[in-house]
Amino acid sequence: MRLDLAYHGSAFSGFQVQPDKLTVQGALEGALATLLAEPVVIYGAGRTDAGVHAKHMVCHFTLPRAFILGDLLRALNALTPKELLIFDAREVPWEFHARYSPHRKFYRYGFDTGRHPDPFDLELRYHAPGPPPDDAVMQGVLLGISGTHDFASFTTSKNSSRTTVRTLEARLEREDERRFAIVLVGNGFLHNMVRIIAGSVLSAGRGTLRPAVIFGALDRPDARGELGETLPAHGLCLERIEYF
Amino acid sequence: MRLDLAYHGSAFSGFQVQPDKLTVQGALEGALATLLAEPVVIYGAGRTDAGVHAKHMVCHFTLPRAFILGDLLRALNALTPKELLIFDAREVPWEFHARYSPHRKFYRYGFDTGRHPDPFDLELRYHAPGPPPDDAVMQGVLLGISGTHDFASFTTSKNSSRTTVRTLEARLEREDERRFAIVLVGNGFLHNMVRIIAGSVLSAGRGTLRPAVIFGALDRPDARGELGETLPAHGLCLERIEYF
Repeated sequence: MRLDLAYHGSAFSGFQVQPDKLTVQGALEGALATLLAEPVVIYGAGRTDAGVHAKHMVCHFTLPRAFILGDLLRALNALTPKELLIFDAREVPWEFHARYSPHRKFYRYGFDTGRHPDPFDLELRYHAPGPPPDDAVMQGVLLGISGTHDFASFTTSKNSSRTTVRTLEARLEREDERRFAIVLVGNGFLHNMVRIIAGSVLSAGRGTLRPAVIFGALDRPDARGELGETLPAHGLCLERIEYF
Repeated sequence: MRLDLAYHGSAFSGFQVQPDKLTVQGALEGALATLLAEPVVIYGAGRTDAGVHAKHMVCHFTLPRAFILGDLLRALNALTPKELLIFDAREVPWEFHARYSPHRKFYRYGFDTGRHPDPFDLELRYHAPGPPPDDAVMQGVLLGISGTHDFASFTTSKNSSRTTVRTLEARLEREDERRFAIVLVGNGFLHNMVRIIAGSVLSAGRGTLRPAVIFGALDRPDARGELGETLPAHGLCLERIEYF
């Protein structure tokens, strides 16, 4: 059974289940346990950190008995917090795995360089007041890191992936004079990778980090210290997942 | 001195100053008192209730001594909560009054008729699950109440205006299959008027209130009980104010 979800990250301590904390996986597993009177394990397409939003996350689980899909969807939404919306439930072939079936993820990191933040965007966009960054430099960095590289320096020691080689497409969207978004599309992302890329791109745009230093950190495992800071979680959103 | 503001209504107990509560007027007057070391009274274009949002509110006050406008703007934003943004400060002729100078206000009431609310819209749109309302009926009601009428039945006993005659233009915007907004433009609004109109329009769209009953309540002071409910504050936003 596949579920398609959206959630406001501010309400959750991340996706992955943790004792005594409200997590997306925990809320779903709790609702399913209530509904089915037996424990069920949810597998997500990835683990978003505390505060990270998702407009589209996918997970799967094995339903131990038949259910009318509409009833399942209504019951899960009724039994989970309103900051989590389960918008689709469908049966999938047995070999479908939310994480290992081939897919592309679309991430978006939004930031605002204006002096004061927009009151309607406080939880959804990182506020980075300061000089307007150079679009062309930011776009250039994103093009330069696009492709297949070893991103070992673009992650944390918490990363547990077997390989740190990833393929991605990256681009900048300028929303208005002060608002920007970094859009990354790829088949997989390392822990904190998008937030480290966003911090490095913003620093490059402001002239405090040379693009050559960022490119030099590709395919080298020991260059985390040369890159920009990890930007805060609330600017990040998992926008979409496509399965092939 | 005129100030142009925006605020996220969830953070404030309304616009008007109240003892021991965080209000927009209170936050501004407090910041001005800190800055000028003397009390200053703020006059707003209107008073929004607790929970109502504003993307554009205007107020004015008398500045007791000269200030560089950019410095004033920065200081006020630094001294007020981040849910309040002062985005413009300008000098105005002495006869300017935020409330009594001729102006038009644009209000928007947003609601969502889908079964489950959008996690990213919880504080900004009223969730009214149920059958999809009839667009044409809602549009018809809004056209029918447009114009100059006595809206005495479209307010609360808290209303303190000298006259309850108002002129407005009203229309429906359909944003997608489940999301609607009622847009009202007028020179002045009575207490709860937009929220009572929104509740009546939604009931008419769902067939539980006849449009003729709503039209019959115009120009009559005793028909509040025949109209729809007052919808909650968080769906309402003061979108813009234009001075002539």
